[in-house]
Amino acid sequence: MKTQFYTATSLDGFLATEDDSIDWLFPLGDINDTGYPSFIAEVGALAMGSSTYEWMLRHAHTVAAETGSSWPYSQPTWVFSSRTLPSVAGATLHFARGSVQLAHAAMRAAAGDKNIWVVGGGDLAGQFYDAGLLDEIIVQVGSVTLGKGKPLFPRRLTSPPLQLASVRQMGTGFAELRYRVPKSPASRTPNVSIGDA
Amino acid sequence: MKTQFYTATSLDGFLATEDDSIDWLFPLGDINDTGYPSFIAEVGALAMGSSTYEWMLRHAHTVAAETGSSWPYSQPTWVFSSRTLPSVAGATLHFARGSVQLAHAAMRAAAGDKNIWVVGGGDLAGQFYDAGLLDEIIVQVGSVTLGKGKPLFPRRLTSPPLQLASVRQMGTGFAELRYRVPKSPASRTPNVSIGDA
Repeated sequence: MKTQFYTATSLDGFLATEDDSIDWLFPLGDINDTGYPSFIAEVGALAMGSSTYEWMLRHAHTVAAETGSSWPYSQPTWVFSSRTLPSVAGATLHFARGSVQLAHAAMRAAAGDKNIWVVGGGDLAGQFYDAGLLDEIIVQVGSVTLGKGKPLFPRRLTSPPLQLASVRQMGTGFAELRYRVPKSPASRTPNVSIGDA
Repeated sequence: MKTQFYTATSLDGFLATEDDSIDWLFPLGDINDTGYPSFIAEVGALAMGSSTYEWMLRHAHTVAAETGSSWPYSQPTWVFSSRTLPSVAGATLHFARGSVQLAHAAMRAAAGDKNIWVVGGGDLAGQFYDAGLLDEIIVQVGSVTLGKGKPLFPRRLTSPPLQLASVRQMGTGFAELRYRVPKSPASRTPNVSIGDA
């Protein structure tokens, strides 16, 4: 059971434009030609921030056209937000506030032997990293640059560095890079966080 | 003869920290284990911005320890800056101001059959792109994130996108991604720029 930050990004490290558009992403290739189908088959629970969740709500039409359903996930999904957000039909949703640690314990219980997917955004993935709970970063690097936008992973992670596990080319539109995440310095000090119980 | 932006970057798209440090880069691997030796063998002229050049001046000691010389390039080098900068012993330097087009014509003449290397920074590479003079972007993606710093390529380049030509893993510290650059929309309109003479 791993906790994985799996995402597409521009070559220059942006998940989306400043106004949360990912329109640049769709022309680059078909998601079914990527490692996504085999990835999602091993996912037992999802985590996403409010920007990602609200993008899903706003683009229900696009999502349905791409996937066949306006909410394409059968897995239970934890939405992290300090605000009260609307639900969506057909989704198993848990709205979470505050530290990711408590929610991670619940996600782990729900996922069983399967993995936890941190869908985004970058700061939510960073919070899992800060808590020592992130095992892998899997990035589909799209063949574009955005110049500015929503950051991939707003953290300094250099010592120890990530460990590149594999690279894979998917046409001319994507490179998939898979990394193992070292435990954050804070998480290497002994602790009794709920996530480790 | 190609004009190539060849650089190392963090996974999240930064060439250096905000204070121009690339100390995170050296522990990731030995430059001689990368494609650099075969790349530099085909380079006939270099272009760099003032931050890159001044980094070389400030770190003459580090550069000498890594390469055996405080100025490791035998090729003529164009330094783009609006300021007057000191020279360095053993280097063939041309100080250039203003548009990259005029200088590119001189670099092309100097390089002969070989390539022009845009060393950095990202905005200088962007200026070559804006002028329709950039053919390839070759990125060594280091297995770190910096969170903030000097941007890889401060341009929006999505339509048409870059064309991923190859990917290559170098240990756990680097992934090399090679892209062909589409001509910028501006350069596709007929023009008689000096660079095309």
